Amino acid sequence: MRLSELSRDELVALRTESQTAYDALLERGLKLDLTRGKPSAAQLDLSNELLELPGAGRYTDAAGVDCRNYGGTQGLTEVREIFAPLLGVPAAQLVAGDNASLSIMHDALVFSLLKGTTDGPRWVDQPVKFLCPVPGYDRHFALCEAYGIEMVPVDLGPHGPDLDQVRALVADDPSVKGMWVVPTYANPDGAVYSEEVTRALVEMETAAPDFRIFWDNAYAVHHLTEDERPAIDVLGLAEAAGHPDRVFVFASSSKITFAGAGVSFFGSSPANVAWYLGHLAVRTIGPDKLNHLRHALYLRDAEGVRRLMRAHREILRPKFDQVAEILTRRLGEHELASWTDPEGGYFISLDVPDGTASRVVALAKQAGIAMTAAGAAFPYGRDPRDRNIRIAPSMPAPADVAAAIDGLATCVLLAAAEQRLGE
Amino acid sequence: MRLSELSRDELVALRTESQTAYDALLERGLKLDLTRGKPSAAQLDLSNELLELPGAGRYTDAAGVDCRNYGGTQGLTEVREIFAPLLGVPAAQLVAGDNASLSIMHDALVFSLLKGTTDGPRWVDQPVKFLCPVPGYDRHFALCEAYGIEMVPVDLGPHGPDLDQVRALVADDPSVKGMWVVPTYANPDGAVYSEEVTRALVEMETAAPDFRIFWDNAYAVHHLTEDERPAIDVLGLAEAAGHPDRVFVFASSSKITFAGAGVSFFGSSPANVAWYLGHLAVRTIGPDKLNHLRHALYLRDAEGVRRLMRAHREILRPKFDQVAEILTRRLGEHELASWTDPEGGYFISLDVPDGTASRVVALAKQAGIAMTAAGAAFPYGRDPRDRNIRIAPSMPAPADVAAAIDGLATCVLLAAAEQRLGE
Repeated sequence: MRLSELSRDELVALRTESQTAYDALLERGLKLDLTRGKPSAAQLDLSNELLELPGAGRYTDAAGVDCRNYGGTQGLTEVREIFAPLLGVPAAQLVAGDNASLSIMHDALVFSLLKGTTDGPRWVDQPVKFLCPVPGYDRHFALCEAYGIEMVPVDLGPHGPDLDQVRALVADDPSVKGMWVVPTYANPDGAVYSEEVTRALVEMETAAPDFRIFWDNAYAVHHLTEDERPAIDVLGLAEAAGHPDRVFVFASSSKITFAGAGVSFFGSSPANVAWYLGHLAVRTIGPDKLNHLRHALYLRDAEGVRRLMRAHREILRPKFDQVAEILTRRLGEHELASWTDPEGGYFISLDVPDGTASRVVALAKQAGIAMTAAGAAFPYGRDPRDRNIRIAPSMPAPADVAAAIDGLATCVLLAAAEQRLGE
Repeated sequence: MRLSELSRDELVALRTESQTAYDALLERGLKLDLTRGKPSAAQLDLSNELLELPGAGRYTDAAGVDCRNYGGTQGLTEVREIFAPLLGVPAAQLVAGDNASLSIMHDALVFSLLKGTTDGPRWVDQPVKFLCPVPGYDRHFALCEAYGIEMVPVDLGPHGPDLDQVRALVADDPSVKGMWVVPTYANPDGAVYSEEVTRALVEMETAAPDFRIFWDNAYAVHHLTEDERPAIDVLGLAEAAGHPDRVFVFASSSKITFAGAGVSFFGSSPANVAWYLGHLAVRTIGPDKLNHLRHALYLRDAEGVRRLMRAHREILRPKFDQVAEILTRRLGEHELASWTDPEGGYFISLDVPDGTASRVVALAKQAGIAMTAAGAAFPYGRDPRDRNIRIAPSMPAPADVAAAIDGLATCVLLAAAEQRLGE
């Protein structure tokens, strides 16, 4: 029965029942972590071949370059060629870096702050604002916060942000310099930007001539269904729209091969790539080319990546199904919460009754279930409705995911009943 | 006979003789590169075991952490413990990063510019000057130039910079925020900072409370003689002097294992390490821990590094000896040039007659011998005497080093004779 239709007596009964379940949960002494989107050991095992690569006597790339030595800021051609079709970026406009696309985003931001973009002076002397579709990725927001960039939330729907909000914000304010986008299976709510929304974003007029979309295609190939939709050609659309330099594309193999030892990518217009490589050359003599070679030998081609991602799906899909099943069973009848059913990516976004997310996360923590902090998916960690909780089911074993989500459901019910009873 | 004592006829003869030699050199059509301090293939071969490491089924560190996954910003304990005694930095105060210490220097500078240090506001809002002992490392100077930091040259002697100059510059001017130091076998002139100079640098009073020494110990273990002097305990000296946060230590295994796929290090006071890690956490979820594990398995301990460096010495020493032999034979009698006889590191610094270095490098280039640009060892690429040329003999095969240096000597003689004849 719907929570909103329960009588006071029924609410008290639910409160008591949930408290009993919660006390039992406390007694179990769980120690589970659903905070971060980390791949599980079983997923990492898929790529264990990398542990022995490149192998004895193998250290030259296709062009004959000794990958052990210095140099080659753009990264190995062959690893760029593998990922180019998957990301919809020509290999010549792709830069392969070290293990973290977050670092590339950081550096692109730092270069813009301290050196300016190709079409504007350095940002550090001006007020800078970034549009942040919410809910979104907490590490994007942490980057903005660290460097004093004001974050302006905009509502994110299933196919992209509210375009009216976005257009109104960029039209008159030249301090709106950027926007975060996770175009495919967005963290945390699984949104997938449509081609229409994408076209609108690259076509719209912006008061800032140096407006940049930080297009973090972190989950480009991380399908949870058989519908393996290709990446949108965002650079092509931007060029066609007359704004070829508007988009920075970021990606990595972190959730494809090894999370801590993958290869990251930066893609953009030729002018932006030259800009990025020019500044990068002051920071490094080159990326770890042996790790590029290792990945090229292991993945072979785009189809190799697709095959590997299907093996990931085999491991991930049951965990996502399990979360949906438990949430439906435990919370469905009360119609007090809603959650996403993502077609890819690493997260399920759970909305509990307004004003209770913090309480739910605190209750879960006390019961040994670590969830990402409530509000983490919002700029400055502030969820205006205190209702959103990010669930990351990838890392724990299936039985642990089940225990954690069941416990979490208990916390949701308890917090909701408490609230309705005015406690 | 000394160049300065030659009669005009003798000079003309030398000019003619050198021109003939140079013409013969042109005909040889050489294609040699002595521009950068890159290890040779033979040196890289020493560490080929790394190509197969960590090996099948090996991915956990001593603490049981899965190195394939995210996390661990400070880097693997075991790789920090190997390098700690070599760098004279406690392992707890050492951070292991990715493949380039230049990147760590860049980031330490960027964090200081955009976030401020532990004891002062951000640098980007103030004029900032760095003292640059000259000749020095061109990539240090490129970092300063990129970020608008004014470089102030100070004279470097065999045991460190001219302390009177340094003290005078730091005493009254709070915009002097930093100083570059390559303490061991400095690039390019092989200077080795003495403990006395080091003590003076960490003891001196500075107008800037947030003065930082960027202590780039790039060649800490790169001995070319059997005198394997230990690293100076610069952090201990700084702490004893009451300036515990003055020094950032940088190092890497680039010229120990693989130049492009090694491990880099940052070391400093506990407060500075916390400062660095705090800002680093916004940039990355962690370094490539598998590469740390690979290095820990291969190097084993500090003695393993020392053994490896002796094998490097076996390869490098003959090349350095060859350069000295050829320069002495070809240029010695004329007493027109001087060059260093380094006890370690990667470079020989050659001083030719004032005003001729650019001409020598241009002549060499025309003859297919690529040398680092004249002036590269000076801020803004400006050698006030236009006399310094950096020789990097490590990369080419011995016969090529000989051909290049012999050709270079021809260019030196030709340029000197031209100059004396007023051409």
